[in-house]
Amino acid sequence: MPNYKFECLNVSVSGEGVARVEINRPEALNAFNTQTWTEIGQCFTQFKSDGDVRSVVLCAAGRMFTAGLDLKEAMASSLGKARDPDSDVDVARKGYYHRLFILDFQSAISAVEVCDKPVVVVVQGGCLGIGMDLISACDVRIATEDAYFVVKEVDIGMAADVGTLQRLPKIVGNDSWVREVCYTARRVGSKEAHLVGLVSSVYATTGEAMKAAEDMAGVIAAKSPVAVVGTKHLLNYSRDHSVGEGLEYTALWNTLAHNSHDMATAIVSSLKKQAAQFPKL
Amino acid sequence: MPNYKFECLNVSVSGEGVARVEINRPEALNAFNTQTWTEIGQCFTQFKSDGDVRSVVLCAAGRMFTAGLDLKEAMASSLGKARDPDSDVDVARKGYYHRLFILDFQSAISAVEVCDKPVVVVVQGGCLGIGMDLISACDVRIATEDAYFVVKEVDIGMAADVGTLQRLPKIVGNDSWVREVCYTARRVGSKEAHLVGLVSSVYATTGEAMKAAEDMAGVIAAKSPVAVVGTKHLLNYSRDHSVGEGLEYTALWNTLAHNSHDMATAIVSSLKKQAAQFPKL
Amino acid sequence: MPNYKFECLNVSVSGEGVARVEINRPEALNAFNTQTWTEIGQCFTQFKSDGDVRSVVLCAAGRMFTAGLDLKEAMASSLGKARDPDSDVDVARKGYYHRLFILDFQSAISAVEVCDKPVVVVVQGGCLGIGMDLISACDVRIATEDAYFVVKEVDIGMAADVGTLQRLPKIVGNDSWVREVCYTARRVGSKEAHLVGLVSSVYATTGEAMKAAEDMAGVIAAKSPVAVVGTKHLLNYSRDHSVGEGLEYTALWNTLAHNSHDMATAIVSSLKKQAAQFPKL
Amino acid sequence: MPNYKFECLNVSVSGEGVARVEINRPEALNAFNTQTWTEIGQCFTQFKSDGDVRSVVLCAAGRMFTAGLDLKEAMASSLGKARDPDSDVDVARKGYYHRLFILDFQSAISAVEVCDKPVVVVVQGGCLGIGMDLISACDVRIATEDAYFVVKEVDIGMAADVGTLQRLPKIVGNDSWVREVCYTARRVGSKEAHLVGLVSSVYATTGEAMKAAEDMAGVIAAKSPVAVVGTKHLLNYSRDHSVGEGLEYTALWNTLAHNSHDMATAIVSSLKKQAAQFPKL
Amino acid sequence: MPNYKFECLNVSVSGEGVARVEINRPEALNAFNTQTWTEIGQCFTQFKSDGDVRSVVLCAAGRMFTAGLDLKEAMASSLGKARDPDSDVDVARKGYYHRLFILDFQSAISAVEVCDKPVVVVVQGGCLGIGMDLISACDVRIATEDAYFVVKEVDIGMAADVGTLQRLPKIVGNDSWVREVCYTARRVGSKEAHLVGLVSSVYATTGEAMKAAEDMAGVIAAKSPVAVVGTKHLLNYSRDHSVGEGLEYTALWNTLAHNSHDMATAIVSSLKKQAAQFPKL
Amino acid sequence: MPNYKFECLNVSVSGEGVARVEINRPEALNAFNTQTWTEIGQCFTQFKSDGDVRSVVLCAAGRMFTAGLDLKEAMASSLGKARDPDSDVDVARKGYYHRLFILDFQSAISAVEVCDKPVVVVVQGGCLGIGMDLISACDVRIATEDAYFVVKEVDIGMAADVGTLQRLPKIVGNDSWVREVCYTARRVGSKEAHLVGLVSSVYATTGEAMKAAEDMAGVIAAKSPVAVVGTKHLLNYSRDHSVGEGLEYTALWNTLAHNSHDMATAIVSSLKKQAAQFPKL
Repeated sequence: MPNYKFECLNVSVSGEGVARVEINRPEALNAFNTQTWTEIGQCFTQFKSDGDVRSVVLCAAGRMFTAGLDLKEAMASSLGKARDPDSDVDVARKGYYHRLFILDFQSAISAVEVCDKPVVVVVQGGCLGIGMDLISACDVRIATEDAYFVVKEVDIGMAADVGTLQRLPKIVGNDSWVREVCYTARRVGSKEAHLVGLVSSVYATTGEAMKAAEDMAGVIAAKSPVAVVGTKHLLNYSRDHSVGEGLEYTALWNTLAHNSHDMATAIVSSLKKQAAQFPKL
Repeated sequence: MPNYKFECLNVSVSGEGVARVEINRPEALNAFNTQTWTEIGQCFTQFKSDGDVRSVVLCAAGRMFTAGLDLKEAMASSLGKARDPDSDVDVARKGYYHRLFILDFQSAISAVEVCDKPVVVVVQGGCLGIGMDLISACDVRIATEDAYFVVKEVDIGMAADVGTLQRLPKIVGNDSWVREVCYTARRVGSKEAHLVGLVSSVYATTGEAMKAAEDMAGVIAAKSPVAVVGTKHLLNYSRDHSVGEGLEYTALWNTLAHNSHDMATAIVSSLKKQAAQFPKL
Repeated sequence: MPNYKFECLNVSVSGEGVARVEINRPEALNAFNTQTWTEIGQCFTQFKSDGDVRSVVLCAAGRMFTAGLDLKEAMASSLGKARDPDSDVDVARKGYYHRLFILDFQSAISAVEVCDKPVVVVVQGGCLGIGMDLISACDVRIATEDAYFVVKEVDIGMAADVGTLQRLPKIVGNDSWVREVCYTARRVGSKEAHLVGLVSSVYATTGEAMKAAEDMAGVIAAKSPVAVVGTKHLLNYSRDHSVGEGLEYTALWNTLAHNSHDMATAIVSSLKKQAAQFPKL
Repeated sequence: MPNYKFECLNVSVSGEGVARVEINRPEALNAFNTQTWTEIGQCFTQFKSDGDVRSVVLCAAGRMFTAGLDLKEAMASSLGKARDPDSDVDVARKGYYHRLFILDFQSAISAVEVCDKPVVVVVQGGCLGIGMDLISACDVRIATEDAYFVVKEVDIGMAADVGTLQRLPKIVGNDSWVREVCYTARRVGSKEAHLVGLVSSVYATTGEAMKAAEDMAGVIAAKSPVAVVGTKHLLNYSRDHSVGEGLEYTALWNTLAHNSHDMATAIVSSLKKQAAQFPKL
Repeated sequence: MPNYKFECLNVSVSGEGVARVEINRPEALNAFNTQTWTEIGQCFTQFKSDGDVRSVVLCAAGRMFTAGLDLKEAMASSLGKARDPDSDVDVARKGYYHRLFILDFQSAISAVEVCDKPVVVVVQGGCLGIGMDLISACDVRIATEDAYFVVKEVDIGMAADVGTLQRLPKIVGNDSWVREVCYTARRVGSKEAHLVGLVSSVYATTGEAMKAAEDMAGVIAAKSPVAVVGTKHLLNYSRDHSVGEGLEYTALWNTLAHNSHDMATAIVSSLKKQAAQFPKL
Repeated sequence: MPNYKFECLNVSVSGEGVARVEINRPEALNAFNTQTWTEIGQCFTQFKSDGDVRSVVLCAAGRMFTAGLDLKEAMASSLGKARDPDSDVDVARKGYYHRLFILDFQSAISAVEVCDKPVVVVVQGGCLGIGMDLISACDVRIATEDAYFVVKEVDIGMAADVGTLQRLPKIVGNDSWVREVCYTARRVGSKEAHLVGLVSSVYATTGEAMKAAEDMAGVIAAKSPVAVVGTKHLLNYSRDHSVGEGLEYTALWNTLAHNSHDMATAIVSSLKKQAAQFPKL
């Protein structure tokens, strides 16, 4: 996809209406440096208003999804220095800019959720730290048998601050498990991840997992984009509001859908038992 | 129940304090026309202030719970026409009234939740589209082995707008699964539904499932209605508020219970190890 | 722990940074009288600003975790009398003070959640009524094979009002199950409790369960307390807010962590693959 | 207006697109019996989907806007009896139905706000108790010189429960004043009411005040109903949400307006400096 | 009042059901040391469940309401030292305890609001810093002509953190003014304070102002305490919630009032045009 | 200020730490084309992390603050065409992108509020439509005698959607007035604007008004930036949250301030009665 040129990401067309985003720093076990998460923010923000993208498969190159934050870069960077507790910069001043930095980081990861197009993620090897924040912002999670998951932040002396603590408890309905893995940073295998509902399915190889993800993304991309985008947007809105507020917002949102051609097209096709074709958004 | 006369619903006494509501359009596979959902709204609103009703079993006649929205009626109705994207009615004007229409529809389905009396639903055959919205508003879901479930709306060109997107993610603790089935409209069998927690139990036949539902509803109807109604009301309130706000509202709500005779009756019976009798609400 | 002297609780050091709180009224099956819950409130409030306590194991003496509220005391107490629906005290006046009483009770149980230090609870024998409220406020739940759980309040003529209805649906992702057990007060065995995610693991004996709890608490206590306390605090905050508000608050919270020595210590240790030592809070 | 037949209200056309609602029980000083507020609920709910009504003038017949609740009816009614604190009906049961009664009453008064068409109210003589709840739900308040206002509920032994305590502090930016008048039930003259912003303007006679109200309602009715209805709806929504949530909902709402003919019509007319004509909703 | 013994406060009976609280450190211009605000928290918390107190007059001894925080104590105290930015205590650890300290301070001031009994405050001389936080938590503000007001915190290098920034914008409906005085710390005279609605009335002398406050408190104390306490509680609740949520909570709250004797007493007295007598809470 | 180069804005240093932003399209009466609001968004976003900017004066060149939206550009632009209700683009697809467009526009105006540095705005001549949205996002409003204000959107067939309906009712405590001017689009003179609290003060000439604004901005810029930025940030946060949530967030925010050198510097200076110097953020 020529309009999506990045250093740390490969973006390609995986099928009709399906974009494939590959995190591509295998030599560093896809550790997240600033460039990586900045590009993820840019890429998914661009997806939001790109009608050609109807669903996304997110994956990572090499033997591991991601080793987490690139700690060496974090220590070497100017931020690492600014963060030095022994520096003589006033703590309120350092804190003001740190807060802005964290908000930027969060915003980049949240772009995956905000883009309104469903994102299926495939995890192989390990998924540590920021990797958990990232996959928690995706819609559907698929893993290989060798995958494992670690909420690693507590081991680098901080609470996770880019989304895991907000989203994980709302995507896995087992709070006792969520808290245990967040406090202990213990390693969770793909079987356990499947059992608690962190991932939807587990495949023997990365190839099979990718195939499953692309098939699912393909099915989604063939549906009415008005319906699909609305469904993702409203699921996210409703998660963050009461049922009553979710319904109120939904009624307003769907006044547009009720005036769209897609609904008539879909109903007529459904009554005729034919497959409908829907133009892009 | 003589005060509950409807066209599309059969309402009967299923046991002491238990009402049975049967959706009764088997010839149309219980497809929901406007009459059906309007009556559901009326029936459960009436339950709310009917002290004789302490719990409800909801079911449907024939081989299938519901095929979903009655698409033929939807297309033929004046709303269907008004919804025509090619009509020359101004879209803001159409949209204003569509929004009111959706709010009315939502309100009818939400009446099941708002009625304050626990509702156990039995699903056999298929449960599609609006059927999912409806059972998500019930308290306990029981299925037969042949039951299957489809969040169908995406296939008619729209996001579900009568409750599924609001309630389903809050009743099933597996967001990866919820999103998958909402985006793909794939068919979910009763075994899978049980595994993810969409239904509480699965029985071989409709008769066995109905028996289980009626037994459970009977147990509930024999408890103090002050306690039961409060429990349902507070579970719903607390789902939509922070833990702190839920506790604050609960403390206020229970000032009435603490002054009720039921609590004294129940405690004395409990200490005597006798079954207590509680008058109706 | 000499500063923690209570009548109904034994508080001891269970390991480096780990406090053990034992409810100690085995002769009454650990039924909760006013003294018991008052002391729980005091004990966990004290933990909050006690840097020596980094994690907590909560358990109960004897063959059962708790039989629930001490009904005899409740009936005999002045509150029991004030609660008499046949007394001639004006109901609005009684109600005003009952509300304050319930708020106090809630506040004592919520202290477990508010204390910011992770709490692992071990349940053996039965856990009834107020016991459910209490374990719902803990972080991780571990059970013995003989354990069973009952949301008992409906059987004493009232809706649960000290936390179960607020927290249980947010820690177990199966609303059909939650509502069934809240309306029917039926007994749930440890196997079922494990399956729905109420408890994290089940052990044959109390000894083994305690060992597992203490091991987990020990692992947590060895981590950076800045990271652990932040993680618990932010998980609780985020449960009660939208993802967006949770992220905003987290960014602010972590400005302190980013200026702490722990992060540098942890990162350096991690890069050196050494175990880090973190001073107490 | 032939479709608006009521016992206690006169509804007439006051001008192009302007409905006039007159509370008409002057012999009882427009005291509110159940019939009166029930009809207000019905009337304004009907306005909501009546495209011929673009704005409303609300007023009352006789020398006084309203003396407040009809206390004699309240005491004589079955509710009055049910409310008897000395009756032997269980307080939790009485309370359950009282709550539903108050919610119905609130809903009737809130219909004025929910109807989406701006309501200008004219107050002459006195406006007591429920009268304050009612005018607080209106958009613009105009008074005569002899008008006075009393938040009377505290004098009948209760906190106001149909809207004054919710809306008054949000329409008058002087909390010290609001609280004083709510705690003391003191009489506020029209001059003071103007000064604190409770009313927009004061006129010597009812005739002049009515003229001003009808002029303003006429101006509003000549604007695009898409714009006017949206403005009222969004002002109400935004009052009850954060600025951010208000903006988000507004962006969604206005997607319809941006596709309406009214905007093009209005802009073209504005550039040509001509008066635009807008069809009804 | 023998149960109210404090070092920095004088608490006395000012009239039937009216308590008078006088801040009594005139030699220090009533500067707030830790003892002062701790006692305010204790005193008003005690009022909450003291049926003999129906309304409160808050005032201060000497020529000035308060000079604000006692800066000398703040610098000398252990907290002042702990707060030293140059100390080598880890900032995340200092921060954790500072946060708890601020929460305690806030809680003490909020006790004035939480106590449910209306508080009329009289301000003479100056009211600086913490004084603004305190009077913002009162219900009605009365001033003398020589009074002046300063939101002083910005001048001691911090944002106000005990309530002014939360409450002032909600009690004065002029945000341009609020922000100006919060950013500039400029002095506001009593005339200007009256004009913007910060105070309800201005009197020439402290004696006259006290007389007005005591008269108003006396009027309030003679009303039904069920009605008055409910009114204050619901005004506070409704300020912090949407109109809809405020109404819902109010309907629940008033189920108690509707079953109280006060309402019948008040209505009968009102119809007979007699003064009613209401027992204490 | 060399880093602030814009087409439609002049940005200059107005005093120590004070930036002056002048909207500079006097030939078009400062009508807002897309370039104008885009640059406002960019400029104030840049201020947020520019430590040299401590406060801002916003003004406009020529005889009028702004005539509102540039209608000719709006009609001619591609968006104007896309917005054509008679185009054959599917309304749900048009609507999706219109919504994103409005959100971008809102975001640009909200940057004024989000930048954390206080903004004093000076209005001369007229302030129409988008001008009202803009000044509502400022902190302090100052006007000249010839200034007038019009909430103009209703006259172009739409509800205001860039902030007026959200912010105006929260900055002016007179809802009757707010609604009247929003529904009627009537012209409000500077005297009336002052009376209702829309503006803080009125000056005879633009020069005098600018002088007053710059003096105020200068006073603010001389204070501790930690204190000032915190005050603005917390005022905005608290407006959008309950008092309780505002306090909780404030306690966390100020843990940084309590560890800053500014507080010590300020207190010492205050005790010495000297002016303190505070380094930039």
